[in-house]
Amino acid sequence: MIYVSRREVFSASHRLHNTELSDEENQRIFGKCNNPNGHGHNYILEVVVAGEIDPKTGYVVDLKLLKTVIIENVVKKVDHKHLNYDVDFLKGINPTTENVAIGIWNQLVDKIPGGKLYSIKLHETENNFIEYRGE
Amino acid sequence: MIYVSRREVFSASHRLHNTELSDEENQRIFGKCNNPNGHGHNYILEVVVAGEIDPKTGYVVDLKLLKTVIIENVVKKVDHKHLNYDVDFLKGINPTTENVAIGIWNQLVDKIPGGKLYSIKLHETENNFIEYRGE
Amino acid sequence: MIYVSRREVFSASHRLHNTELSDEENQRIFGKCNNPNGHGHNYILEVVVAGEIDPKTGYVVDLKLLKTVIIENVVKKVDHKHLNYDVDFLKGINPTTENVAIGIWNQLVDKIPGGKLYSIKLHETENNFIEYRGE
Amino acid sequence: MIYVSRREVFSASHRLHNTELSDEENQRIFGKCNNPNGHGHNYILEVVVAGEIDPKTGYVVDLKLLKTVIIENVVKKVDHKHLNYDVDFLKGINPTTENVAIGIWNQLVDKIPGGKLYSIKLHETENNFIEYRGE
Amino acid sequence: MIYVSRREVFSASHRLHNTELSDEENQRIFGKCNNPNGHGHNYILEVVVAGEIDPKTGYVVDLKLLKTVIIENVVKKVDHKHLNYDVDFLKGINPTTENVAIGIWNQLVDKIPGGKLYSIKLHETENNFIEYRGE
Amino acid sequence: MIYVSRREVFSASHRLHNTELSDEENQRIFGKCNNPNGHGHNYILEVVVAGEIDPKTGYVVDLKLLKTVIIENVVKKVDHKHLNYDVDFLKGINPTTENVAIGIWNQLVDKIPGGKLYSIKLHETENNFIEYRGE
Repeated sequence: MIYVSRREVFSASHRLHNTELSDEENQRIFGKCNNPNGHGHNYILEVVVAGEIDPKTGYVVDLKLLKTVIIENVVKKVDHKHLNYDVDFLKGINPTTENVAIGIWNQLVDKIPGGKLYSIKLHETENNFIEYRGE
Repeated sequence: MIYVSRREVFSASHRLHNTELSDEENQRIFGKCNNPNGHGHNYILEVVVAGEIDPKTGYVVDLKLLKTVIIENVVKKVDHKHLNYDVDFLKGINPTTENVAIGIWNQLVDKIPGGKLYSIKLHETENNFIEYRGE
Repeated sequence: MIYVSRREVFSASHRLHNTELSDEENQRIFGKCNNPNGHGHNYILEVVVAGEIDPKTGYVVDLKLLKTVIIENVVKKVDHKHLNYDVDFLKGINPTTENVAIGIWNQLVDKIPGGKLYSIKLHETENNFIEYRGE
Repeated sequence: MIYVSRREVFSASHRLHNTELSDEENQRIFGKCNNPNGHGHNYILEVVVAGEIDPKTGYVVDLKLLKTVIIENVVKKVDHKHLNYDVDFLKGINPTTENVAIGIWNQLVDKIPGGKLYSIKLHETENNFIEYRGE
Repeated sequence: MIYVSRREVFSASHRLHNTELSDEENQRIFGKCNNPNGHGHNYILEVVVAGEIDPKTGYVVDLKLLKTVIIENVVKKVDHKHLNYDVDFLKGINPTTENVAIGIWNQLVDKIPGGKLYSIKLHETENNFIEYRGE
Repeated sequence: MIYVSRREVFSASHRLHNTELSDEENQRIFGKCNNPNGHGHNYILEVVVAGEIDPKTGYVVDLKLLKTVIIENVVKKVDHKHLNYDVDFLKGINPTTENVAIGIWNQLVDKIPGGKLYSIKLHETENNFIEYRGE
């Protein structure tokens, strides 16, 4: 078993806001992350795939193919977008890093071109990051 | 002469858009950076101050004071904000990295607590960055 | 289950020295790390919390609260300090990175404001780091 | 149980090529990585050792010793070398990152001077990396 | 005047060897960098352009265009190549970082799509880097 | 003219303290940096040499030689040391980053094995750094 990671970067806006709560409660919980005009990040995404080595290629997964899958199914949908308004797979979801990571997991889990999706790591800033393993 | 740098980070949204141009021309020039709902970045700001060493302190500038000046005059105004709508010193300005760097220079140039402002470096992504020296 | 990480940095001195051993044996085991006047590092601390997402907030843990807990219980006690002399929770302990990581775990394990403490990662230099999971 | 990591860097050439396949199939599978004259990388290697703390030293493993073991058994054999031609422990192996990581594991697994080898992490580029835990 | 930087990465092999010197002298001067089968690096290239801001775009240079120029004229020619054998603009040149940086300058100096080329920075490893300003 | 940089890292303790001032004034000026037992950093040093390329070697300066000069004249004297007490070339000097950078310049300026010393860059933390060019 080998774990293979591919890193991609995207830049997006978001606003933390739970539409079922009052404006006051949103402000109390999310503070400056609730700014009505939003704010943004350079997100760093790491997709980790686990599997055995194919003796023909020496690869668990062809990273050229994995890169294409990540670009087509995630990066093109979130890069230079507003996560609250522009992204089909995040519609109606409060885009905390946790929820975005789960959304990305769901986008990728059945499209990995070799091995199995093991983990999604998502860095929102250099100090805050998330890992989700589908558990 | 010594050059002293202080690095701060802020997260903000922006949309590249020149209000004097048509929507079509904005889209042609700025492409995905013109997305109506905006997108965002973790900006890395480096403020470089030049000066001579004060023999009493061994400092060109007290970095605790410089940090406070940067936080009060820049970071509090741009962090977790939308650069097109929320920032007094960028009102009416198309927030390219170049223009944001000049705006930050103007915020800081007469408030440096020791030495003189030498350069503003602003990283928009890990691949794109700007330096402005007030020339 | 989601893993949430918060990174903080602190700068401290230490000297590797086991008071139950002779000076010669300390020098033999710890070499330049046994320098009597000590030396220091910019330590990078990552605190990993594991838990489920609160549907109200979309958070496992509010990182603003987690940051405050880490600052109050760890960073304020170790930043710009000498780990052998100035830190209550390291008294009598030889401050290897391993022992400091365990000390930090013990400081934080019952104070995490959401989810459960999963791991302490501590980087002493860019080449040497430690992870402790309380096992 | 504590996990201790040591990071080392080496610079090497390689060419992805399976000698049992035709040139056409090699080109189809490996693309630009199959360039006959090869290409190269600054590989970042992280060796993770797991164990309990020795109460005498406060160490799981003396990192000075671990560093020497890694330098002697891995870095000296691969740094400034061509992985396809110059490295005894990779002879006859297609040097994908996966296969190089396993080769390094095998070089080190019975030579760790304290604790047990837990994981080999190998970064080929800033975007592509591998972890192998001997499973 | 603003300085705009664009960062790109490429992976290449090289061998330091002056064909006008004997093998012994090459070995004496270049040591392990003279390994006959070569070795390689992940080179980090920074292209710095200086100019004034175009009031229409807010740009000194459109980084989408600059990126394309760098990719077409440099990265496609050197990425996943052997710098001694595969690169037209380095033919007959001993590929030290210095010489590669000058070669890249010459490739780009008359093709910059806005502003003027100011500097080429080339990182061979995390410890060794070069800057050339055409002087 | 080419600028060649070599990066080295060292770990040291220091205490900011001007022996000609009272304890109260030292505490007022230097705050937590005046802690009597000191604190420490992983300093990152960049030594920049400027010169022309030697046509025989393709080098401005042989980085193997430059590295040795830096290790012998700086790193061995400061690494794992206390900058206030253990370092001959900093005796009697308040070890601010500014003063340490000038001390390192003076150590190296007449020992550069090719080209001329152009600049000393010294990073005290990831947020604070200094450049000195001997002016």
